[in-house]
This record gives sequence, structure tokens and C-alpha cells, in this order.
Amino acid sequence: MSKVDIISIAKALNLSKSTVSRAFQEKSDINPNTRNRILAYANEVNYRPNHYASNLREQKSKTIAVVVPELENNYFTQIIKGAEKIAKQEGYHILIYATDDDINKEREFITSISNGKVDGVLMSVVGERDNHSYLHNIDLKKMPIVFFDRVYDDIDITKIVTDDYQSSFDATEHLILGGCKSIAYLVVDKDHSIGKERALGYKDALKKHKIAIQEDLIVDCSNSYDENFKILKELLINHKPDAVFSSVERLAFSTYFVCNDLGLKIPKDLKVVAFSSLQIAELLSPPLSTVTQPAEQIGQKAAKLLLNTLKGEPQDVDAKTIILKSELRIRKSSQF
Amino acid sequence: MSKVDIISIAKALNLSKSTVSRAFQEKSDINPNTRNRILAYANEVNYRPNHYASNLREQKSKTIAVVVPELENNYFTQIIKGAEKIAKQEGYHILIYATDDDINKEREFITSISNGKVDGVLMSVVGERDNHSYLHNIDLKKMPIVFFDRVYDDIDITKIVTDDYQSSFDATEHLILGGCKSIAYLVVDKDHSIGKERALGYKDALKKHKIAIQEDLIVDCSNSYDENFKILKELLINHKPDAVFSSVERLAFSTYFVCNDLGLKIPKDLKVVAFSSLQIAELLSPPLSTVTQPAEQIGQKAAKLLLNTLKGEPQDVDAKTIILKSELRIRKSSQF
Repeated sequence: MSKVDIISIAKALNLSKSTVSRAFQEKSDINPNTRNRILAYANEVNYRPNHYASNLREQKSKTIAVVVPELENNYFTQIIKGAEKIAKQEGYHILIYATDDDINKEREFITSISNGKVDGVLMSVVGERDNHSYLHNIDLKKMPIVFFDRVYDDIDITKIVTDDYQSSFDATEHLILGGCKSIAYLVVDKDHSIGKERALGYKDALKKHKIAIQEDLIVDCSNSYDENFKILKELLINHKPDAVFSSVERLAFSTYFVCNDLGLKIPKDLKVVAFSSLQIAELLSPPLSTVTQPAEQIGQKAAKLLLNTLKGEPQDVDAKTIILKSELRIRKSSQF
Repeated sequence: MSKVDIISIAKALNLSKSTVSRAFQEKSDINPNTRNRILAYANEVNYRPNHYASNLREQKSKTIAVVVPELENNYFTQIIKGAEKIAKQEGYHILIYATDDDINKEREFITSISNGKVDGVLMSVVGERDNHSYLHNIDLKKMPIVFFDRVYDDIDITKIVTDDYQSSFDATEHLILGGCKSIAYLVVDKDHSIGKERALGYKDALKKHKIAIQEDLIVDCSNSYDENFKILKELLINHKPDAVFSSVERLAFSTYFVCNDLGLKIPKDLKVVAFSSLQIAELLSPPLSTVTQPAEQIGQKAAKLLLNTLKGEPQDVDAKTIILKSELRIRKSSQF
């Protein structure tokens, strides 16, 4: 078989070489029917455009990495979806890496890709309290990074976060205004940046309404479902809060399971509000009130900023920290 | 500052070189306190074990790729979790790639990593009906692949699948035995391997019980929430099925939303059963009956087979196709 290339395809289909070439570019103006005809034929003769070869010449991998603490969380998968949408438009691949909340994994991964394997990184970090000085050894001109959600405040990199303090304040105040006086706050790892911000919003709302802060009601949970079930059961039995405000989605689910187990009715016996990006919050029994972060928008924004940097284009923002707003969606679980 | 290495760390901590070395190996027998002490000190002096350098010498990336059609699906994130657990035990990283149901992305990605970027691949494929001959150009000795869930039957590679036909048959029969006579079957892309298997199970259960197959009740949906809402609303209004059996989790959610919209009560007016790995199926209103695939087990099994191959160890199975069983969990949405 003779060599299959753009010239031979152009000849076979009686099209110009430039038309055939354009069919393989993501963002070119070409008649969709013509493109489909070319792609179908290319597929038939098993022709693969020399995408990687040309990237190699440009020293580009055309890949960006998205680094998240965990994958079993709708919030992060929606962020990835948002980033992917933008990346795709520019012909970039997305590689995903989950650090499992382990700074060693984060450091090893970032270091291992910094030799040109990817062109840039979107990252939600895990080592706020750990030594993360490894980043000083990364050439951020060669591999730019954009932080989102959980960030290193001491590293001078563009950051995209949500208004954690304010939305936490608002959710707590919503419960107080409805008459709750004993509001538990659930968190996993209360010392990381977001956990702290959210706790502060919760505490300040209590203070504003002259409700004493009870340390017993600030509950540090774990990543184990069984442990959390035990912790929350104890909380509901021993401290009888009239509301639970959860900074982590899955702790709200555990609260639902514990209520079912104890025969407690939501919202009659206990109001529940949670940070959550669950798209079926409305289908729960009862529908869950949520602080919903603009997950897909975070992913899109982060990817846009990164791609602009990669293209050497000026940013459409001056700020180094971009704050997006979350939305309090009140449903039956916190109705009065 | 003098060079930091295992020798200097051992000296500083008054430990043997071998003890320090073992602290950086995932699977070594070392006192946890000693390990923590070493890791804390290494972190302090910013020492990074020469993991990648040694991998380079061995020509190993110590990375396996997991390729899935989509990420916004509990089933796939649980499979990834299972694979990650096993990989971690052996000191491997996991890279995740979502093909968005696009054979071009699959081909480009697999081709781009086949030059040593990863040591092996776990993949749920997307191009069953497309030309996937690109795989013949991949050196499977150099980069072994294990298929899971959606597989290419014509490629001689170890495959891990679930008993789609049987579990689909059982779920349909459960509805029939409860008295349903007009059972709709929901699918996205009914021509791919799994869609076909599941449709066959559904049809054979109807046949066994002498219920005529109505093509109008076999509904091919899309990946768009809005479109599915419209399609399912039309189905429920025009064809008035007494049950819906969904081969895709999110179509069950759409069915719930449509029922809420139309004022139909589940299970009184409509029974619902769905393939789903949702861990909070029990918290839905009403709790959703599911065919639950052993997702985490699939990920673990696939990773074990791949890692055994990488280590040159004999497989613990002879079969090229391993079939794991799904479980029918009957909840309120299909109670009679």
C-alpha cells in the first residue's frame, strides 16, 4: 500500500490539500459535510493526522493536567467537565490526577510532569499545612499552574476560589432566622483553608445573633463512612442539635442515614443544609438544601486563564485571586 | 548546604541507611513511628526519594492509565477508586482519561501514551462500531491493556465484564412478576455492546412471559438532560408504561424528574428499576431499585490482572473474559 497522507487523501477525494488539512483542525471553518466526508475516508484508510508529531516539533504536549484531592465528589467531576469543555475547544487533552489528600502524591506527580509532559496544570491542593516548597523548584514559566478551590496562599499563582466565608455565614443565618438555636457544624479536616473559612462564617453568624459557640457542636469527621455514621449518631443522641450545617456533601448523606436509623424526621426534628453540587439534591427524601458552588464555571474559568497564559495572551482579569459566588438553594430539608 | 541523601538522613537520625531507604518504599516492614519520623525529617530538609530517577533507569513510569467513556458517573469513579487502591499498594500512580464517547480521543490518547509514558492501561472502550484497528499498531507486550465493562470483542485482550444479559433479564422479570405488562426500556446508544446485551435480557424476559415486545417502549435517549426530559415526558404521556427499566443511571433520575413534573407517583403509577451504582439510591424519594454492578471490584480485579502482567507473574485466571455478577437491589421504587 502506498503511503497515506494529506496529499493522497486530497487526490482521492478531489479536494485541495488545504481543505483536507483543515478537516483535522478542531477550530477551522470548513463545511461540516466536507469535513465528515474527509474524516470518514481517513478512517477507512486508517490515516491518523500527525497531531503528536507536530506537537513534538512545537515542544507542546497539548495536554493540561487537572489535579484534584478526590474524584468521588460531584463538585470535582463537574469542575473537570467545565475545564474539559474549554480545553477541547482549543484542541487540548485533559489528564486527571487524584491526590487522595496526600501531599506526597501531589509533589511526586507535579514534579514528574514538569519536564514537558503537560503544558499546564489546574490544581486544587492538599498540603496547606504541609511543606509545599517543592513548588519553588517548578519552572512556572514552562509549566504554568492555576489553583482552584483549595489553594496555597503563600504561592504567587492565580487562584480561583468561592466565597466560602459568606456562603457559610448565609447558610447559618438562614437556619438561625428560622429559629434554630443549636446548630452543629460538620467538617472533614477543620484545619485546611476552606474548612477554616467556612467555620469562621458559621461562627460569625452565631455571634451576630448572640448564640454561644459550642465546641461540642463543631464536629471533625473522617473519610470513612462507618466512622462518620458512628460520630454523627453520637452527636444526634448526646447533643440533640436542632440543625446540621455540613461543609462536606457526603456528611449530609451520613446525617440522612443516621436520621433514618434513629427515626428522626428531617426537617421536623432536624434541619439540614450542606455544601453540595449534587444534581439530584431535589430528588432526595426530603430534598436537600444546598450551598451550591459554581463548579462547572470554576473549571471553565480556570481553564481559560491557563490557556490564555499558554498562548501568551493577556489575562482578562488583573486580580490574582478570583472569587466566584456560591448559591444558597433552600429546599425542604431546612424548611420551617 | 551539603547534599541531602539517604546517607545524610540516616546519619542525622542515627538510623541505618537501609531503614531510611525502607521508609520510602510503600510496602516495607518498618515501624510506623520510625517511618513517620524519617518522612517528617526528609520533608523538613526537602529531600525527595529518587523515585522517578530509578523508574527511568528501569524504563518504567510506574503509572497506569485508566480510560473511561465519562467521569460524571458513580460507576466509573468507583471503578477508578478500586483500581487506585490496588495500584497504590504496588507503588503505581493512576492517570485518568475521559474519552467523552469519542473514538478519535481514545485513539489519540492511547497512541500518545504508547511510547512509555505509562506501563499499562485499563480501558472501557467507546468505538465498538467504529474502526478501532489502531490497536493493532500498539505493542501490547510493551504496554499491556485490560478491557473492562465496554470491550472490543474482536481484540484478543483480557476482558472484565458483568453479567449484563442476566441482570437485565432478572430486573425485567422482577417487574413482570409484580404484574407490569408495559415495561419501557431506556438506553443511550442502543447499538453498543452493553446496550445490546441488556436489551436482549429485557426482550427475552418479555418473551418468556409471553408479553409482546413493543418497539415504541424501547427508547434511545441522549446525553442531554433537556432532551431526555422531553423524550421521557412524551413516553409517559403517550405510551403510559406501567414500569421503566433504565440501562443508564441518569435516565432514571430524569424519569423521577418527569414524574414530579407530571404528578405521577412512583411506585404507584410507575415502577422504576435502573442500572446504578449510586451510593445514596436509598435516600431518594422513593428509594430507587437498582441493578448494582460490582464497580470497585471490577477496578480492583482489572488492576490486579494488569499488575500481574507487568510483573511477569502468571495470572490467577485462565479465562480471557471474566464475568462478575451484578446485584438486583429491590427498593421502594419497584414495590408492589
